[in-house]
Amino acid sequence: MKLEMFDTTLRDGAQTEGVSFSVSDKLAVVRTLDEFGVRYIEAGNPGSNPKDMEFFKTAAGLKLKNARLVAFGSTKRKNIAVRDDANVMSLLDAGTAAVAVFGKSWDLHATEILNTTLEENLNCVRETVKFFKDNGKEVIFDAEHFFDGYKNNPAYAMLVLEAAKGGGADVLVLCDTNGGTLPMQVYAVVKTVVEAFPGMRVGIHCHNDSGCAVASSMMAVEAGGCHVQGTFMGIGERCGNADLTVIIPNLQLKGGYECIAGNLETLCETEIKIAEIANLTVPSNKPYVGESAFAHKGGMHIDGVDKLSRSFEHVDPSLVGNSRKFLLSEVSGKKAVLLKVGDIAPELTKDSPETAMILERLKELEHEGYQFEAADASFELLVKKVIGRFRPHFELSMYKASSESPAPDGEMNSNAMIKIKVDGSAETTAAVGNGPVNALDAALRKALCVFYPVLSDVHLIDYKVRVLETGDATGSRVRVLIESTDGHRKWITVGVSTDIIEASFAALVDSLEYKLCTVEAAATV
Amino acid sequence: MKLEMFDTTLRDGAQTEGVSFSVSDKLAVVRTLDEFGVRYIEAGNPGSNPKDMEFFKTAAGLKLKNARLVAFGSTKRKNIAVRDDANVMSLLDAGTAAVAVFGKSWDLHATEILNTTLEENLNCVRETVKFFKDNGKEVIFDAEHFFDGYKNNPAYAMLVLEAAKGGGADVLVLCDTNGGTLPMQVYAVVKTVVEAFPGMRVGIHCHNDSGCAVASSMMAVEAGGCHVQGTFMGIGERCGNADLTVIIPNLQLKGGYECIAGNLETLCETEIKIAEIANLTVPSNKPYVGESAFAHKGGMHIDGVDKLSRSFEHVDPSLVGNSRKFLLSEVSGKKAVLLKVGDIAPELTKDSPETAMILERLKELEHEGYQFEAADASFELLVKKVIGRFRPHFELSMYKASSESPAPDGEMNSNAMIKIKVDGSAETTAAVGNGPVNALDAALRKALCVFYPVLSDVHLIDYKVRVLETGDATGSRVRVLIESTDGHRKWITVGVSTDIIEASFAALVDSLEYKLCTVEAAATV
Repeated sequence: MKLEMFDTTLRDGAQTEGVSFSVSDKLAVVRTLDEFGVRYIEAGNPGSNPKDMEFFKTAAGLKLKNARLVAFGSTKRKNIAVRDDANVMSLLDAGTAAVAVFGKSWDLHATEILNTTLEENLNCVRETVKFFKDNGKEVIFDAEHFFDGYKNNPAYAMLVLEAAKGGGADVLVLCDTNGGTLPMQVYAVVKTVVEAFPGMRVGIHCHNDSGCAVASSMMAVEAGGCHVQGTFMGIGERCGNADLTVIIPNLQLKGGYECIAGNLETLCETEIKIAEIANLTVPSNKPYVGESAFAHKGGMHIDGVDKLSRSFEHVDPSLVGNSRKFLLSEVSGKKAVLLKVGDIAPELTKDSPETAMILERLKELEHEGYQFEAADASFELLVKKVIGRFRPHFELSMYKASSESPAPDGEMNSNAMIKIKVDGSAETTAAVGNGPVNALDAALRKALCVFYPVLSDVHLIDYKVRVLETGDATGSRVRVLIESTDGHRKWITVGVSTDIIEASFAALVDSLEYKLCTVEAAATV
Repeated sequence: MKLEMFDTTLRDGAQTEGVSFSVSDKLAVVRTLDEFGVRYIEAGNPGSNPKDMEFFKTAAGLKLKNARLVAFGSTKRKNIAVRDDANVMSLLDAGTAAVAVFGKSWDLHATEILNTTLEENLNCVRETVKFFKDNGKEVIFDAEHFFDGYKNNPAYAMLVLEAAKGGGADVLVLCDTNGGTLPMQVYAVVKTVVEAFPGMRVGIHCHNDSGCAVASSMMAVEAGGCHVQGTFMGIGERCGNADLTVIIPNLQLKGGYECIAGNLETLCETEIKIAEIANLTVPSNKPYVGESAFAHKGGMHIDGVDKLSRSFEHVDPSLVGNSRKFLLSEVSGKKAVLLKVGDIAPELTKDSPETAMILERLKELEHEGYQFEAADASFELLVKKVIGRFRPHFELSMYKASSESPAPDGEMNSNAMIKIKVDGSAETTAAVGNGPVNALDAALRKALCVFYPVLSDVHLIDYKVRVLETGDATGSRVRVLIESTDGHRKWITVGVSTDIIEASFAALVDSLEYKLCTVEAAATV
């Protein structure tokens, strides 16, 4: 059975603390979601926000394969004609084929927040919906606070849906706006509505304030709903909206529903793409798409997965574009190290003394605050160092990085000096930067390029800092992760120190050494 | 009705990527959980881990008010006597009043992973449980992979429970070990088990791989379960375990169940305390306990909350020790600014020119990457600056911070020099540190204490760094948040720059200025 997925990352998701989308961000998200194959993309509120109106004007030129763009707005204000409501007219001006119109379905909100009569509120709903139908739009009616409204005054909540239906609405969406309704209650109410409106498409819009938005959305489908609203990454104000990246694989892989027009195997890359545009990180423990969603740690457990993967995994990770991961950590033991070392030193076995040495070194470094779970390039260098296959390409004689305020006239405020040696030849140089790490990065690269011109292609694309211990405040250790690219491949390295400059330098050194090792390996082959 | 909350933060939670607890960490968590009032604290696996055995020896001396300590371990190995199984004997040696014994309930695991017969597996379960009962323990039987087992071979899964009951088990816990079972399925299976074992206590243990661990745990209670296993913060391997900090308020505030012996209003502080011990941050969007769980952003929405809070909040935040928050952001408008400014300048109204100026300045700074949502002290200073009520307590003439490698013999690798002026008198000083920010912090404090001895009580307790733009790598801007205390109060300040030292310095300056302002205000009163 087919279900309609309605994505509101760009509208309700944009309410998230710390998230905002520019017009070009929005266009990029729309293209990504369309490719993935959701049915509706709600992309803004043109009446309340001039930036959103600009977006809809630009988006009119997009050729979408699978999705319909949706503009969102309120029912008309009380006691005026629809045509006299500027917000309603903006919604029409947005020029989308579909509109989402939200109206009050909780009697309390009609009387106390809108300060109107219950009758006039029904009127606002009916007339606004009818206006958009008369203008040829597909109308999705969002019944705001429906579950709270139904609890307080079920007859009135149903009258609001009747009014929307009377105006010609195509879909009736039941919104748990405050996110407080529990899954069993959602099930019961949706079932009542589905039975009361035979033939109507009924939808669900959940928030995660009770930690149940995913489950409640699925319960609504179980009760006969066919339209699910949510966001990518579950972003949204307070505790977020229902997370489509969890609901879709749950429904499609376990419920046998057809949710998207695209390929579910692109789920992970779609999520990461959208997270990057929103400048968010996908939490590693996110169901299906997190880096750790299919990670195995305990020693015994890893043996089991290796023996019979389906016995330890609820779905095959490749179905959502993710992959199995064996964690390297104190408890993981030799088996995990071997699984991970396989590509670097395939000749090692459980009984090789090198295997124990790698595990030992790993434990020491983890104790200092290193983590190699993401930093594959640093891990490869670590293994090579332990088994004696690493030859450093340069030696650091000294560096000094400093930062001052005020900055010297017309100059950057930071500078770094460095001295390195390569096969006995020394190179001393310096560089400025807009911070001490930036200056040191520039100086190190400048010095090394004298000997290794191939490094001129390498540049950094991401830089992350994590303070490790709280409590010591500015004396805390920091872990720095650096992602580098040479235009073809990407790799991640790690450094740890109480000094952020030292930690960053360690990660920079690993990044450049890693590149030089791969060049060498390619030359040998 | 009373329910049993079983916390496994220290056992299953300790499997989380990046999390490890020392013996003293574990003792601190146990005390915190006992105070909060969960019934069981599962604190380790003494057979598999010598550190855990050390913990149980030490913990034997703890006087707990509400909780029972639980040690966790496997049923005996196949084809040997219980007394000959070293893991079982370690579990006994742990000396806890209760033990959690896990056994296989999925036929596939018995035959393919344990390589034994279905009959011998039943035998292992029955005899191990009986052994602990004969030794006077309360026995909680964890039926591993129960839901997958029940799906594959329901008759055998039920036989495993029969075997545990036959051995004398006190509780039968149904584990969704792989986290793939959906809430409706959990409900149906738990109901069947509750009906098949009248009078037995039935429990639930969910993982979050389908994003439904909270909902499924509640469904199990709805189906007649009385014992819920989970972790604080929902930590656990892969996607985590069921999150007790969400389940408990859901059940207690909405279901009318009695879950804990302590006070639910301590939920937030308990969560933060445990997160600090685990060196984790509570995600701001976590239901009930996150900083944004009761945050309101959109302008219209804030009007509504102000008018009638219950219409926009699923529960009263004070019931879980959280509080309502109005976010200051581009979209929040004057109303939000006024609500927030209330304590600082109560005379301002919507129409005061200062209100518009504050909003304007806020937008500029947010555009630069500042966020005042957490940094209340910096926000207070900002307001005072805009309305002309801020007099700086010192003036920076210059600073210079540097870091070098290798460090000079026997010295710290960083140092900072600073020159400040107070009412025309200059003070120049310097300090060393284990990083440049640490050195600059020490130098600034040293210089200021000459003029303001009251600052000697102030110290930093937390320091956070967030890289704002990815893509520019080491040239990115960073936002630094600093939390300070004078031993009585805590406050948070913020700084932004491409240079981490400059960003940190801005937050340090705000922290000390804020303290001096409060001292002045107190003196005036």
